[in-house]
Amino acid sequence: MKLLETVRWRDGRVRILDQTLLPGAEVYPELGTVEEVCGAIRTLAVRGAPAIGVAGALGLALAARELEPTGRSLPDLWREFLAAHARLAAVRPTAVNLRWALDRVRDRCETALGELAAAGPADREGALACLRTVSLREGEAILEEDLALSRAMAGHGFPLLPAAGTVVTHCNTGGLATAGGGTALGVVMEAAGRGKRLFVCVDETRPLLQGARLTAWELARAGIPFAVQCDGAAAWRMKTRRVDAVLVGADRVAANGDTANKLGTFSLALAAREFGVPFWVVAPRSSFDLSVASGEQIPIEERAEDEVLCWGGVRSTPEGARAWNPAFDVTPAALISGWITERGVERPPFAA
Amino acid sequence: MKLLETVRWRDGRVRILDQTLLPGAEVYPELGTVEEVCGAIRTLAVRGAPAIGVAGALGLALAARELEPTGRSLPDLWREFLAAHARLAAVRPTAVNLRWALDRVRDRCETALGELAAAGPADREGALACLRTVSLREGEAILEEDLALSRAMAGHGFPLLPAAGTVVTHCNTGGLATAGGGTALGVVMEAAGRGKRLFVCVDETRPLLQGARLTAWELARAGIPFAVQCDGAAAWRMKTRRVDAVLVGADRVAANGDTANKLGTFSLALAAREFGVPFWVVAPRSSFDLSVASGEQIPIEERAEDEVLCWGGVRSTPEGARAWNPAFDVTPAALISGWITERGVERPPFAA
Repeated sequence: MKLLETVRWRDGRVRILDQTLLPGAEVYPELGTVEEVCGAIRTLAVRGAPAIGVAGALGLALAARELEPTGRSLPDLWREFLAAHARLAAVRPTAVNLRWALDRVRDRCETALGELAAAGPADREGALACLRTVSLREGEAILEEDLALSRAMAGHGFPLLPAAGTVVTHCNTGGLATAGGGTALGVVMEAAGRGKRLFVCVDETRPLLQGARLTAWELARAGIPFAVQCDGAAAWRMKTRRVDAVLVGADRVAANGDTANKLGTFSLALAAREFGVPFWVVAPRSSFDLSVASGEQIPIEERAEDEVLCWGGVRSTPEGARAWNPAFDVTPAALISGWITERGVERPPFAA
Repeated sequence: MKLLETVRWRDGRVRILDQTLLPGAEVYPELGTVEEVCGAIRTLAVRGAPAIGVAGALGLALAARELEPTGRSLPDLWREFLAAHARLAAVRPTAVNLRWALDRVRDRCETALGELAAAGPADREGALACLRTVSLREGEAILEEDLALSRAMAGHGFPLLPAAGTVVTHCNTGGLATAGGGTALGVVMEAAGRGKRLFVCVDETRPLLQGARLTAWELARAGIPFAVQCDGAAAWRMKTRRVDAVLVGADRVAANGDTANKLGTFSLALAAREFGVPFWVVAPRSSFDLSVASGEQIPIEERAEDEVLCWGGVRSTPEGARAWNPAFDVTPAALISGWITERGVERPPFAA
């Protein structure tokens, strides 16, 4: 099956698959500016912790191209580059991959510029060329690594699933949530690809239906049988029919294992514990933030109330109604069976 | 505040408030046939266990009016009346109030016809007039009693709520779910009316958004502050902010206290237990089915997949996607703090 091209660098632009239009249309807009990348991340045209890390990194490569050297000193240009970094980092606060990827590109550029300066007198044109080359190279490296990380997680995760059975997923954790591989759904795809007969209960994932729209689209594309269910249905499913595992992604894992993920994950974990169903978090190490001791220190993004109050442009609530719309919740480590990363199945305390 | 006229008898027809059009429009269609009543119950134009009981009872009064005596014997007419009873009872299988109300009207009519026959020779016209009078009188009695039951439940329930605090509700359990009073939301309204300062977290209640559409509409009408939240949000709300109580309705309560209610209730109850939040079921005794030992014997209605797959006529899932759409789940008695009925706060074993 052809890998999804969620985020790619194409001829000096960032080409994304616009996830807001799925499953109705498969459209690949090309983003030419940092602001367009910020907009795409903000509106969830590109989403999923690993995918927004890649998009952010390539966004910084765009930022280096946007720098206008005329009449500006090298320190001015670097400050502008850092400002672009800050704008990208601020778009979504919960997933740590975005900041991790941006910091990595920035640090690599800083090192390269330092090496350039050490080699001889400062040359603004040469420094700018270096910044453009290194930022793009690092962004592309993060993208390539992300594909490799997905393969590694899939390899570590698939043996945990039965030869035949039912799994529950929440939100979208497939190719669309990464550079094209997948975290939790990548494990399911790998297991199915190796002949395991899996049925997937797809939490629709309100308010933006990433399960119903995106996971369903990926599973249909892969020919894996599934049924979409309301988010409140998982506990009843576990009570009345066999469920063998729950697999979810992560937006940020704290040092103690508390895991921020799409709203509804915590509820799903409580149900899994009630019925003794293994509950796996599948995430690359770039989603781990060991500087944060526990889930209480993870900032939780609250998104626009209209995401809950309206659907398809039509208001479903009375005029004046308010909504509470946290995009994520934190599942306590005690409810999680294990964290499947590129290193294997890990448990806290996590090795640095 | 004016009582909602969810279901009423008006000039030989059943007038309902069409809940499928709320909150956008407040429309009161008049139903003139049993088939129209069946349709209104099937499409959830009238919904909520007590409300469909009342609608079913008045539907039987319509059935008595639809009987065409020419060329038919009294036993023929009675068989037709029973057939209408069966058609109405079959529309929705989980809520026991519908069958309870229909049986009550039927039994009252049977008794009246028996008394009439005992008084003198059978008179087809007289028997038909008796059937029409008694069925309507019994239907109207069920309606009036339902309003009184709501008042009694509200009276028993409001002392359980704090003078100021936050409650979580699921689905719609207000005037719209009854003849105009309310079960769980009726308790909240009563408490607010008596000066308790309550904030209501309204589970939107997928797939048909009875919380976002109907509960929000009732709370806005009553001037009680609230916020709509996704169904998966309650656990996170309890973890991060104080929640003082959960109040839900019931479609059927088994003898051991297992309680069938709108899908998602079970998940909500697991969250409430996790955080020690009192979880109250508010339902009239007509929602109790002591002939059923436990929740495992309660039939759970599965509704059309398109309720999950589409919204507002627009498909949100890829072509060919399937859905699992049980309308209800069963919350085990052990997760429920108490059952607020017209008799007070009860716990199993329930007095007959």
